[in-house]
Order: sequence, then structure tokens, then C-alpha cells
Amino acid sequence: VSRIIDLSQPLENGQPAFPSDPELRITPHAHIPSHGCAVSRISFSSHQGTHLDAPAHVIKGGKPVDAIPLERFHGPAELVDLAPGGALDPSMPITIGMLRKHAGAFRPGARILYRTGWDRRAGMGGYFEGFPSLTPETARWIVSRGVVLLGMDTPSPAENWKETHQVLLGEGAEVVVVEGLVNLHLLPQRFTFVGFPLNLIGLDGSPVRAVAVVEEPPAT
Amino acid sequence: VSRIIDLSQPLENGQPAFPSDPELRITPHAHIPSHGCAVSRISFSSHQGTHLDAPAHVIKGGKPVDAIPLERFHGPAELVDLAPGGALDPSMPITIGMLRKHAGAFRPGARILYRTGWDRRAGMGGYFEGFPSLTPETARWIVSRGVVLLGMDTPSPAENWKETHQVLLGEGAEVVVVEGLVNLHLLPQRFTFVGFPLNLIGLDGSPVRAVAVVEEPPAT
Repeated sequence: VSRIIDLSQPLENGQPAFPSDPELRITPHAHIPSHGCAVSRISFSSHQGTHLDAPAHVIKGGKPVDAIPLERFHGPAELVDLAPGGALDPSMPITIGMLRKHAGAFRPGARILYRTGWDRRAGMGGYFEGFPSLTPETARWIVSRGVVLLGMDTPSPAENWKETHQVLLGEGAEVVVVEGLVNLHLLPQRFTFVGFPLNLIGLDGSPVRAVAVVEEPPAT
Repeated sequence: VSRIIDLSQPLENGQPAFPSDPELRITPHAHIPSHGCAVSRISFSSHQGTHLDAPAHVIKGGKPVDAIPLERFHGPAELVDLAPGGALDPSMPITIGMLRKHAGAFRPGARILYRTGWDRRAGMGGYFEGFPSLTPETARWIVSRGVVLLGMDTPSPAENWKETHQVLLGEGAEVVVVEGLVNLHLLPQRFTFVGFPLNLIGLDGSPVRAVAVVEEPPAT
């Protein structure tokens, strides 16, 4: 029996976007009484809410979402909980030393979601600033370990977004970066991650419905 | 080893939408040379391309996408190929008799994708009219078998969309209807279907990245 844990922020009017991004707008287009069916118009940023970044987000000529093998977005994954039962002090950078304690998880081909506790602020004011951040050195260490997918419960791997993204998404690294996850406190250490992008052609990123699939023994 | 088969139409400018729906528009919002990163604005219908319908699409007070258990969108599924190696004559309705030959697949809790060969026209003129359609009686038979998810390679289960949708999505049925699938000719008979909606709150439907996961023995 599979149980699904939702790791995705809601998409509805009022949900904030990155400060300089297009706003999320959902508007009714057709209605059951007048049209026989309800249809909505959805307008949002390719980086709204829980989403993933492709190399084309920051690398000139980098791969768009549709050039990443689909197998990357689905498979065994591991939780790295950096603040079990609590939250990281956001003023402290996430160092290589903090990840070394979980070094076994950081192996070639690994999908890793790291938890800082910041997702408590998702959807609220202040979510997009002052969050726990990887240093560029930590990002380089992650790349050196051969990780293929890195997710986090912050809106970005680092407030110093440019260098960190260039390290993670650059040539030879091309880590799939899944930002804005929630509910990581509900995860067991090992699970199956599912987070496919929409089939957007040539784009820099995509909103995703990220979930964890947990296999459980049938109830007795 | 898992292999992923993409069952989703591309999302890019120029892809048609249902004739009365909002058009798909993808526009650049930020650029690497000027902003340091590329960001896009996506605007589309909740029923663009490969998508799913929730009961709220046609039933007043029906469940929206976020009220459907996530377990529905992921799990064992079966292909019902109504035109192996070819395509159905679209002038002939899909009858109960045609499905009875595959009756073993139509069982309580089943996820079924049926193939008519119509997906060859996806993205082209004429895709939205004259496609092979379920009769309302066939839809009622499918509901009576306890199917929980029904996907198809046509833009809708029937051109007579209203009654068919009301049968499939109505109270006591609440079949998840996944429309506009492609590549069904690539599927083995049994596979794992994955097609989660975006985490849209209160909506009538959602674009999905529908895929099949096929487990294969490792190469020797």
C-alpha cells in the first residue's frame, strides 16, 4: 500500500511570488450555470511556489526543463534533516560540516531533500528573505558528491542566489533544484520522490506537484 | 531500473486549446543578460493540453482537484488498446461491446487508459472535433465497474461532452478523467501511472505531466 505525502505549496490567489516575478492570478473563465462547465485561467511565473529550476534559469545556453531526462524527477530519495524537531537559525550559513554528518546520503545519483524548518513561513510575509542558505562552497561540495536532485524547504538554496545557482546548475553539475518544498517534517528518511515538471518546451523552470510516495505494509 | 514514458502534450506557444478556453501564452519575463536569470510567465486554461477534470468541472458543488485523494493519481494502471497498430474509425461510437473484450481491466479501483489512435492529431487542426467518443451508456458501464481513473488519447471522452462528463464525474462516480494523453502506443499493457494535478485550490481541473513508469530488468 502506498501513501502519498504532499510536499507542495498551494496555488491560489494571494500566494506570494518571488518579489520581481509575475504574480499568481487564477480567474474564472466559464461557469456551470451559464456554460455547462467550469473552466479557469491560470497565470503564474515559471518559478511560482514549489517549483524546479533547469540550467537555462541561470546558464546561457543551459538545458531547459524538457532536456532533462524524466528519470531524474522520480525515484529513491533521502531526507537530510538539518534541524530535527525545530528550525535552523537563519543567520547561520549551511556549511559543509553540517552536511558531512549526513555524508552517506550525498552519493552519486542521489536525490536529496534537506530540511531547515523554514517552510513554516511559506505563504507568509518574510518568506523570501533571511532564510537559511547554502554557502557557494557547500554547493560545490554537494556537486562534487554527484547529487542529481537537490530539494529544500526554502524559496532558494541561498539568498546569494546567483553564485549558488550557477554552481548547482552549471555545466558538469546540472543538479535539478527543487525549491519551496513544504511538509518535510512528515517524511521518513527514505522515500520515493515524484516531482515532474509540466511539459514546457524551452523553459527555465516549472511549477511542480512534488510528493513523496511511502510504501507501507498493509494494515493487519 | 525504471523507464519513464511521457504521455503529455507539449506546452508551448502555438499549441491549440479547447475552442472556447483561454489560450496558452508563454512569455519571457526576465533574461540572463539583463537580470542574471531567466523567468517566464505562463498563462493557460485549467484544461490545456494533457490535463485532468475534477467533479467541479461539471457538477455544481462537486469536488475540486484538491479534494481528490492524491493516491488516485499514482499507481498500477492498464492500457486498453481499442485499435492495436491503427486508429478507430471516429464516426463509430465506442460501445460497451468494444470494452467488454477488455472486461478484466475494468474492475473496482482500476486506473485505465484507453487508446483510439486519435493522438496522432494532437496539436494539429481538427483535433478537437470528430474524435472517437464514448456513448453515455458506455460511460455508465465504466462507472458501474468501479473504475477510479480513466484516461484517453482524445481531447474529451465524448463530443457529447456534457452528459458523458456528468456520468463520469457525478456523485457516486467521481472518476478522475485524464484527457489529451499521447504516446499510448508506447505503453505495455501494465504500468504505473503518474499524473498529479498542480496544487490548485478549489479548481475544476489541472494541466498534468502524465507519465508511465515501467519497471525493467537491469541490462545484462
